Formats: sequence, structure tokens, C-alpha cells
Amino acid sequence: MPRTVSELFDSVARAAQGKLPARVVGDPAVPIEGVAGLETAGPGELAFLANLRYRQQAQQSRAGAVVLAQDQYKELFPRGREQGVAIVCDAPYAWFAFAAQELAPVPSATPGRAANAAVDPQAQVHPGARIDDFAVLGPGVVVEDGAWIGAHCFLGAGARVGAGTRLYAGVRVYHGCRIGRRCILHSGAVIGADGFGFAPFQGAWVKIPQTGAVELGDDVEIGANSTIDRGSAGDTVIGEGVKIDNQVQVGHNCRIGAHTAIAGCVGIAGSAIIGAHCQLGGASMIHGHLTIADGAIIGAGTLVSRSLPQPDFYTGVFPMMRNRDWERNAALVRHLVEMRDRIRRLERQLSSAQAPQNRPESTP
Amino acid sequence: MPRTVSELFDSVARAAQGKLPARVVGDPAVPIEGVAGLETAGPGELAFLANLRYRQQAQQSRAGAVVLAQDQYKELFPRGREQGVAIVCDAPYAWFAFAAQELAPVPSATPGRAANAAVDPQAQVHPGARIDDFAVLGPGVVVEDGAWIGAHCFLGAGARVGAGTRLYAGVRVYHGCRIGRRCILHSGAVIGADGFGFAPFQGAWVKIPQTGAVELGDDVEIGANSTIDRGSAGDTVIGEGVKIDNQVQVGHNCRIGAHTAIAGCVGIAGSAIIGAHCQLGGASMIHGHLTIADGAIIGAGTLVSRSLPQPDFYTGVFPMMRNRDWERNAALVRHLVEMRDRIRRLERQLSSAQAPQNRPESTP
Amino acid sequence: MPRTVSELFDSVARAAQGKLPARVVGDPAVPIEGVAGLETAGPGELAFLANLRYRQQAQQSRAGAVVLAQDQYKELFPRGREQGVAIVCDAPYAWFAFAAQELAPVPSATPGRAANAAVDPQAQVHPGARIDDFAVLGPGVVVEDGAWIGAHCFLGAGARVGAGTRLYAGVRVYHGCRIGRRCILHSGAVIGADGFGFAPFQGAWVKIPQTGAVELGDDVEIGANSTIDRGSAGDTVIGEGVKIDNQVQVGHNCRIGAHTAIAGCVGIAGSAIIGAHCQLGGASMIHGHLTIADGAIIGAGTLVSRSLPQPDFYTGVFPMMRNRDWERNAALVRHLVEMRDRIRRLERQLSSAQAPQNRPESTP
Repeated sequence: MPRTVSELFDSVARAAQGKLPARVVGDPAVPIEGVAGLETAGPGELAFLANLRYRQQAQQSRAGAVVLAQDQYKELFPRGREQGVAIVCDAPYAWFAFAAQELAPVPSATPGRAANAAVDPQAQVHPGARIDDFAVLGPGVVVEDGAWIGAHCFLGAGARVGAGTRLYAGVRVYHGCRIGRRCILHSGAVIGADGFGFAPFQGAWVKIPQTGAVELGDDVEIGANSTIDRGSAGDTVIGEGVKIDNQVQVGHNCRIGAHTAIAGCVGIAGSAIIGAHCQLGGASMIHGHLTIADGAIIGAGTLVSRSLPQPDFYTGVFPMMRNRDWERNAALVRHLVEMRDRIRRLERQLSSAQAPQNRPESTP
Repeated sequence: MPRTVSELFDSVARAAQGKLPARVVGDPAVPIEGVAGLETAGPGELAFLANLRYRQQAQQSRAGAVVLAQDQYKELFPRGREQGVAIVCDAPYAWFAFAAQELAPVPSATPGRAANAAVDPQAQVHPGARIDDFAVLGPGVVVEDGAWIGAHCFLGAGARVGAGTRLYAGVRVYHGCRIGRRCILHSGAVIGADGFGFAPFQGAWVKIPQTGAVELGDDVEIGANSTIDRGSAGDTVIGEGVKIDNQVQVGHNCRIGAHTAIAGCVGIAGSAIIGAHCQLGGASMIHGHLTIADGAIIGAGTLVSRSLPQPDFYTGVFPMMRNRDWERNAALVRHLVEMRDRIRRLERQLSSAQAPQNRPESTP
Repeated sequence: MPRTVSELFDSVARAAQGKLPARVVGDPAVPIEGVAGLETAGPGELAFLANLRYRQQAQQSRAGAVVLAQDQYKELFPRGREQGVAIVCDAPYAWFAFAAQELAPVPSATPGRAANAAVDPQAQVHPGARIDDFAVLGPGVVVEDGAWIGAHCFLGAGARVGAGTRLYAGVRVYHGCRIGRRCILHSGAVIGADGFGFAPFQGAWVKIPQTGAVELGDDVEIGANSTIDRGSAGDTVIGEGVKIDNQVQVGHNCRIGAHTAIAGCVGIAGSAIIGAHCQLGGASMIHGHLTIADGAIIGAGTLVSRSLPQPDFYTGVFPMMRNRDWERNAALVRHLVEMRDRIRRLERQLSSAQAPQNRPESTP
């Protein structure tokens, strides 16, 4: 659906509700059909500049329009951008995101129900919702207007799916779990499986029934094959606007604050409380029963084993080396206490060595 | 299903087969309807005290009954518990678990077969089993009494599911794999996919056929989206009572001893032999072709790269810091060998420095 | 299907296209029915020797035939192998792999289409392909000759599956993704879910539409519950012959070179470019927007946070210890900068201490 820079500009302004001031430098009638990277974009495409590291790619880009920040624009194009339009704004990535949404709108659900879906007579499906092949909806399920339940999805008894939410093929929502509005759940996501709760008894494990559920707020996205466990008693709660990547595990009774972003392969143990606006790097691991402050950033691969009351950027990963260097250095990690003790001994020796040494000089 | 403390007490005694001595302090006629945490529990609810850290919550709890240990009881309630009943026993968490099972019993399978399930004529399904919508059972499959095969489950040719076992929606069991009795498998679990076996040849990989299968003992629980690979030759064996959380990967030919508990996101490479009664912390990683002793405990995030013949508590994770501290400290991890050498040199210098220094004094 | 060593020998030679020279020592008429490990193999079975560490098992093995290298043969069986045949060749593991494939051939797809599959009228399914129960094929899907689409698989609009490829039960391929020929995708694999792309705006996240797709080359294997995200613009590309184990996450726009092997639980962030013939150890984590050289080997559990322009073997994991040792040593990792500074101070002190000490000696 080609449109002009000018039309796109107006659409983005509307989508951002006027909160994303920008200006067009160049011909607003240039047609834009899609987005691409700076290097591959052609005259009908929109690209954006993330970082001045990509200075050269930006200057040489054939993109019909480039979105970038004011200071980037000044530095890279002191005489204007010759090859096309520049869209100059404070938040170029957000502008690009809104524009990309305009250019590649998500198809909305065509209302209807596949004849081969198994919908319990006691499920309430809004006529504006769409139910695909072989989906299974249990008794008491509620699916709101505009929701799209993909093929092979399973909604257990009493599960609820909010308006405009899309479940891709093969999502499983256990009984009693509630999904907000405008959420996106990708294939293989499992919402509401039992939390991992067992009491030791006589050398075996006694299962603690998991009687809570899961609540996902509005505008949540859950990646492929991610799992959010139901609460043991009380719910596991994912706040509005939270974005969770693939293969993430969230344990029972966790609470994740609004607009937190969780990258792939992260594991969060039970009863962890993650603040709002946090960012958890890929494959980071969060212990259970701790609290992380709003706005904290956890580096990829970092294990968080205690509460973080202060927002900051935290890291804890072993630096990578060539294996032969690692073998020698890592062995010494086991001997740091000994190394510290040797340093202490040296300090003591040196201080007492210097003392008698100085003595003769001071008492001539 | 409300019941009195007294009824609950009797039920737990039966479930624990008399091996969990306990006593009730207070009114045994108090009704209990469910379980909750110490802080949120009301008069009709049962809570338990895990730890004296929660002393205040226990003393202030409005719970109808609190389960706790004898010494905790003595310390917290020297004059008895005023707000309700106390249940005093040696293993309060186990008592609580049995009580919770009584209060929230797992629904058992209503026998029957969904008309839209695809059951091979050569599959043997016990009349007491339940087969849900769109399940697929291949030839030679055996499903025993009381087993519950959820919607969209797949049982490959010759797979067996023991009595009373529940497969939630969307579990896949490859051909020839055997699931014990009273197991629970959560959505997305995959039992018996090919192990990762390839021989290098001329710059490419030649696949080793994986001709073994998977055997799960009785009372095993497998979490959502966990995967247990079939053996290359011979089986992958999960012992009875083993509890595996979500997103766990168990490689081909592993053997996991009875009653071992494996937390979320753990990866176990092929041919590892894990003892009985072990505990593997979340996101720990176990190399292949090694042996871990019965009773070993592995901390979260720890990489185990060699056999552990002794049970102990093992850890290996980089401590988390603020990122700016990490950048400076982690860089030095690469130079530990050099630091050690500098310490050695100092020690030598100091010892030789002290020698001549002493000489003049000793030979005046 | 029993056959003689001689027949097996000829089959392997054909499969390896004459590139795997070998010789038989012993009776070529010995019948072989299957493969097994050195210790368990009986007279009708083939085993192979990986390593001289297993010297004793090899010498005592009752296997009908053992595959091993020339120098191993010379050392272990100076007077020939008494209990059976030896197959001596340069690449014993590859020879074993080809032989195992002969002895346990993968069943090929019986052409046909389950009556209960939901195949869009605009899907093109080759008459030589097989479509199993409850599979869903969208409009524009192409399935080539000999491909086998398992039960509960989902192929979104325009997805393509190459000749001879097998999708086990419950694989999801999103719209527009392309799978090569002779690939194997295991249950729960998700190909083409949205990449994780969001722009921050006013404290929330704006989704970047993911308009690319995924392309898998020929002879690729994808493990159970692994996920390969579609590109944001442009495709995520997995080269021919790449082998990916279970629970692996590949982010959007990654490019993975031919014949690279990726073990279980690996996470690769977006836009990483992994070379050909690399090996990524289990649970290793690769940052986004970096490049790894052809042939690099990454140790298990290693976080790769920068480009690796040179092929080498890289490692970065904290060495495991008993927890009480870890607590003391790990605490010191946080103080390495301080330790280094103390060493420096000692060096300075000692050098200035020695200076005056030497002076009297040098100026008598």
C-alpha cells in the first residue's frame, strides 16, 4: 500500500497522538511502500538511523526517506540529504515503529468460527471474534470482540481472552487464566501450567496444588514457547504493556510490573517481584522470592540472586576468553581467597620489613 | 468443600500413612475451605510457616489454622495462638501439602473419548481412560485405566501411558516411549524426540539414527515445554518420583535417579547420569557423559562440567555487580594468571630482600 | 533387517560416495542386525570406538563388529580381534553413522492425506507428500514430493516445505517461511514467530512489525521446542546442513552459516551472523549484531558479547566449587580491582624499599 511521505507523516502523528514532534526535510510527495535497513533500502523505502556508528551507511543510503534525530541530521547532512527525504525527530526509532505499523498493518480478525473447532456450548464467543481450525474452547470460556484464536489453540474452562487479542496457532491457556486486550501470544506459549511446588516427605515429593491462575494485562506480548505458570494460591500477574520474548519461563506467583521487557531464554523463579519499566537481558536468571526495583536493567546472562532495591544496570557474567586462557585463569578463580591471603601476608611482611630497615637509619 | 480442622487432620494422617505425626492446638471444629499465604489468609484458610524469618506475619496472621514446627510454635506462641488453630508437626510443609491436596483435589478423568479424537484401531484404550478433542493415538498405543489424554495430544506408535497419568493439552509422545503411572505432563512437553547425534564427515554432519526410546517411571511430573530426548541406542530413563519443571532439556541416554527435582530452564547433555534425590537449581547446565552422586545439590545457573562423586552443594556463578564495577573486575579475571605471577614474584623478592637484609644483622 | 558385515560395508561405501576408505578384518559373513555401545553390544551388533579411553571396553566387547581407526586397531588388537570383526577406517564415527542409517532406515512418508486435515483449497500438496491428522495448511502453502507433515502441524499462508522434509507432530511454520529439502523438524518447533522488536515511546513499547520470514536451507534439523524468529525486514537465514538441538532460540535477522551445529538451550540474539562449520556448546548465549568467524567453537554456557573474527575455541564460565568455597571466592571477584591495586602498591613499595637497600651496597 504505497503512500507519500506526507501521508505517512500524518498517520504517525495520529498514532502517536501528537506526542512525537517531527519535521520533513525534502519532498513530502515521495512515495514510500515499506521499510528496510539503511544499506538495503531503495527509493520507495523508509529506513532509520539508530546510531552515529552507522554514519557511512546513512550518508550512502538510497532510502527514499531516513528517520533520524536532529543532531544526527545536522552532523551527517549539513547541506541537506541529497538522495531523498529526511524525517527529523526526537525519537526516531519510535517514529519508525509507528510508520512501519502503518506500512505493514497487522491483519485484523475476520469474524467467524471454523466448523471443525470444538467450542463448548457454555463458552461465550463474541460474534466479532475469530476461531480457527481445531481450536478447543472449554466451558465458561469468554472470547471478546475482535479476538483471534488460532488453529490448535486450547482455552481451558473459564479462561478469558480480551478484545483484539491474537493467539497464534498452538497456544495453550489453562483453566481460569485471563488474557487482557490487544495482547499477542505466539505459538507454543503455555499460560497457566502448574507452578513447581513440592514438599519433601520421606525421601519423595508431595505436590502442592496450584490453585491460583495467571492474569496478563492489556497490550502484553508473549513469545513463542514461553511459559507463565499459574499461582500456587493467588495469581501470577503480568502487568500491562509487558513484552516477553521466546522461551522465557515465569514461575508461579511472580508479579511483573507494567512495560517491562524480557528478552529470550530468561528464567524467573517463583514469587519474584519485578518492577515496572525493567529490562531483563537474554538468558538472565532471576531467583525466586526477591524484588527488583522499577527501571532496573539486567545484563544478558546475569544471575540475580538477591533483591535489587535500586534501579541500575547490573551484570554478572564470566568474560569469554580463548579456551586455553580460560583454563588457566578460571582455575585461579578457585584460589582467590588464597591469593588475597598471600597479598595480605606480603603487605604485613613488607610493612614489618620496612620497620626494622628504617630503624637503623633512624637511630644512628 | 469446607471441612473442619479435625476432618482435615484425619485426612492428612491417612494420606501420609501415619508417618507424619502432628497435633492440633485450639478448636478442631474450625472450618477450613482452602489455603493461602500467612499474610492474606482469613479465618477459613490454612497457612503454613516456612521459616522464622516470617515470624511477624505468623504472629499477625488471621489464618484459621497455621501449620508449623514444634520449636517455632514454642517461640512464636508461648501462650498459644489466640487468633485460631495451630497444627504442630515435624514436617509442616509436607503436612500443608497433603492438606492442600485434600482441599483442592485434582479432578480425576471422566472416562470417555471425544468423538473427534483420532484413535488408531490398533490402539488399546482402557474404558476408564479419557481422550480429549483432537488427540491422536497411533497404532499399538496403550492407555491404561484412569489416564487422561488432553486435547491435541499426540501418542506415536507403540507409546504407553500408565494408569492415572494426566497429559495436559498438546503433549507429544514419540513412538515407543513409555510413561509410568500417576504422572503429570504439562502442555508442550515433548517426550522422545531424536537425540542430538551427528558424526562429522567431509565438512557436513551425518545423522546417527536414534533407535532408543524414553521411559518415565511412576509419579513423574514434567513441566510445560520441557523436552526429554529418546536414546540413541538404549533408553533415556527418568526414575520414579522425579519432578521436572518447565523448559528443561534432557539429552539422549541420560539416566535420572528417583525423586530428583530439576528446576526450570535446566539443560542436561546426553548420557549424563544424575543420582537419586538430587536437586538441580534453575538454569543449571550439566555436561554430558558424567555422573552426579545421589543427593547432590547444584546451585542455580551452575555449569557442571565434570563428575561429582560426592554429594555436596555446588555452585559456579559469576557474582552480579553494577555494570560499571563488573566491567573493571571482569576484565581482571582475564589476568588472574598474571596477578598470581606478580604475587609470586613479590614473594620471591621479599624473601630474597629479607635474606640480605638479615645477613648484616646476623653477621656483624 | 539382518545383513552381513560385507553387505553393510558395501552400503556404507555407496552412502559415503566412496569417500570413506575402510577395510574389514575378520569374517565378512558375520551377520549384523543393529548397533549398540561397546559394553552392551552382542555378536549381532555393531559398535564403535570413540576414544582410546575406552580401551578396555573395546578389548572386552562382544560386539559382532567394531569400527575403529587404524592406529587404535594396531594398539588394541596387535594380533587381530578375536571376538569378531574389526572395521578399520579413517573416520570411524562417520562410518558407524552411515552403517547405523542402513540398519535403522528412517521410514519414508507413505503418500496420502488424513481426511481430517484442514488443507486450504489454494494449498499445493504434491501427491507424493503425506499430511497427517488435524494438520492445518493455509492458502498458498506448497508441500513438495515426499514431504511428511505430522499431526497437528500448522503451515501458515504461503509457507513452503521442500521435498523429503519431515515435520513431526505439532510443528508451527508461520506465513511465508520456507523449509528446504530433507529437513527434519521436531515437535514443538516454531518457525517464523515475530522477532522481538519494540521502540520505547513515552514509557511504553511500540511494536516494530516483523515483515521478513525464515528460510531454512536443505538438510537442516531443528530440535523439539526450538524457535527461529522471522526477520524484521529481510529474512532470518539458516544455512544448509545446520543442525540445531532442542530449546534453541534464534532471533530475528540472524544468519547461520552452513553445517554449523548448535547444541541445546542456546540463545542467539537478533542480527547475529554465525559462520559456517561453527559449533555452539549447550546453553551458550550469543549477543545480537555481532559476527562469529567460520569454524569457531563456543564452549557450553559461554556468553559471547563481541564479534569473534578468528576461529578458535572460546570459553567463559565460572568454575564450579563446593558452595562454601564459592561464597568466599566469588565475593573476591568483586574486589579484583582492589587486589590488583594492592599488588601494584606492593611492587612499588618493594622496588623503592630495595633501592635504598641496594644503595649502601653499591656505594661502599
